[in-house]
Amino acid sequence: VPDLVWFDGRVVAAADAVVPISAHGVLCGDGIFETLRVYGGEPFRLDRHLARLVEGAAVLGLEMPWGTEALTAAVRELLEARDLREAAVRITALRGVGPPGPDPTECEETLVFITARPYAGYPERIYTQGARAILATTRQNEHSPLCRVKSTSYLNHVLARAEARRASVEEALLLNSRGEVAEGSVANVFVRYGDGLLTPPLTSGCAPGIARAEVLELAPGLGLKPSETPLTPDALLHADEALLTNSLLEVAPLVEVDGHAIGCGAPGNAALALRQAYRRQTGRV
Amino acid sequence: VPDLVWFDGRVVAAADAVVPISAHGVLCGDGIFETLRVYGGEPFRLDRHLARLVEGAAVLGLEMPWGTEALTAAVRELLEARDLREAAVRITALRGVGPPGPDPTECEETLVFITARPYAGYPERIYTQGARAILATTRQNEHSPLCRVKSTSYLNHVLARAEARRASVEEALLLNSRGEVAEGSVANVFVRYGDGLLTPPLTSGCAPGIARAEVLELAPGLGLKPSETPLTPDALLHADEALLTNSLLEVAPLVEVDGHAIGCGAPGNAALALRQAYRRQTGRV
Repeated sequence: VPDLVWFDGRVVAAADAVVPISAHGVLCGDGIFETLRVYGGEPFRLDRHLARLVEGAAVLGLEMPWGTEALTAAVRELLEARDLREAAVRITALRGVGPPGPDPTECEETLVFITARPYAGYPERIYTQGARAILATTRQNEHSPLCRVKSTSYLNHVLARAEARRASVEEALLLNSRGEVAEGSVANVFVRYGDGLLTPPLTSGCAPGIARAEVLELAPGLGLKPSETPLTPDALLHADEALLTNSLLEVAPLVEVDGHAIGCGAPGNAALALRQAYRRQTGRV
Repeated sequence: VPDLVWFDGRVVAAADAVVPISAHGVLCGDGIFETLRVYGGEPFRLDRHLARLVEGAAVLGLEMPWGTEALTAAVRELLEARDLREAAVRITALRGVGPPGPDPTECEETLVFITARPYAGYPERIYTQGARAILATTRQNEHSPLCRVKSTSYLNHVLARAEARRASVEEALLLNSRGEVAEGSVANVFVRYGDGLLTPPLTSGCAPGIARAEVLELAPGLGLKPSETPLTPDALLHADEALLTNSLLEVAPLVEVDGHAIGCGAPGNAALALRQAYRRQTGRV
């Protein structure tokens, strides 16, 4: 059944899944979300996504009416109702209805909903040819606790995404206020120098990506030495290779930034090896 | 009639004013808003608020299904239906329903709604005793075009507001990434040095407040020399006096920051004179 979503405790028709305009989630972007993949009916790293959701709720002071067990059951209930085995799932929690103004103190119960859709991955081309990126003109705010939260105040990244689209490339990378690379509009960034696999630390303003954590854990098994190190645009351009990660994309080579080839301008060995290792974790290889 | 709102072309019951969870305005904080006062049935500076809304829509690439004339008529229609003469009005435009992911290209029509409520101003105490503020730990991102837009991705300011509440003060001031004062969580900031009235320039990351513009225009008539100048926390603390502006608050003295008195720690003459001049514009004095 295509048009079903989970909304505050039950599976309902998507057309019935609406939120009041007076919800602070709607008025102030006061909410959090998670996006994850489902492989063969199994939500991948759902526990880690839910742990991050709980951490985000704590940063926002957002009460969660559903715990991780209930949300795990809810995701499974929705996947079953929709009969989905290869899918993308999004869990969203929004601050509830409240008085005008940004103060959330008197808001009613948090609104939680889950959507799912058939999803078989990015087009293969991005893995075989590699992704191209630009440096966005808008920047990441590493001085806000929100850079470590997947919040629904996502508009700065929407603007970066629009810059990528206008440049006809797949991703836009956001620098932080110091001019270091923070992250892409929808992905984390890694570079390889020799056998060193580097990615910006959370203090650079990047999201604590679940796929990012997975890649940091997989690296040593592939002979790569992972480290979290601030990354300048110059160091990105001169790396032996670069790659992007997120839960939908998994691991993809990044071969070009602002028209400059990275390494030999083709997918690198680490990207391919990490993708294979990642896919093995998902049970798809 | 208390529970009426204007929603996409007509006045409806508030309970019927709901938005689909698949609207990008809900999922990504992809929207803009304006808040303004109504004095004696007359929306104050509605033309300026609508001009700023149109500018914000351009930054977001958000198509507005209603022009400024239609929105002006809509505000008046709602005020009449609700029989409000002293009121606060909020106009919100949200990116419409679209496919998953942050790319807004294929989104359906923008959702626009207007709410109004009886509003007679802040408690008088804030004008007679002055407001107290803290410096927020979260910061403003002066490197994003969004700092010049009243967007519904407002969560960073919600966090600042929560800091103010925890500190039991009226406002939290956000520094930008350079450590300069940008703005308050809901207000612009001014300081007076002698006959100089200083406020951070837009490049410091402050919103182009409508009340801010009004105060810059009123200053010369009161013997004050207005200028837009970067403002350090130190310069704020050592000013002769300070004040806050926004469309609901109008002009209020700021007498204390992080427990330090500004000037003599009491409302200053410029704040009082500017408030009076501002009130005169609104027809309330």
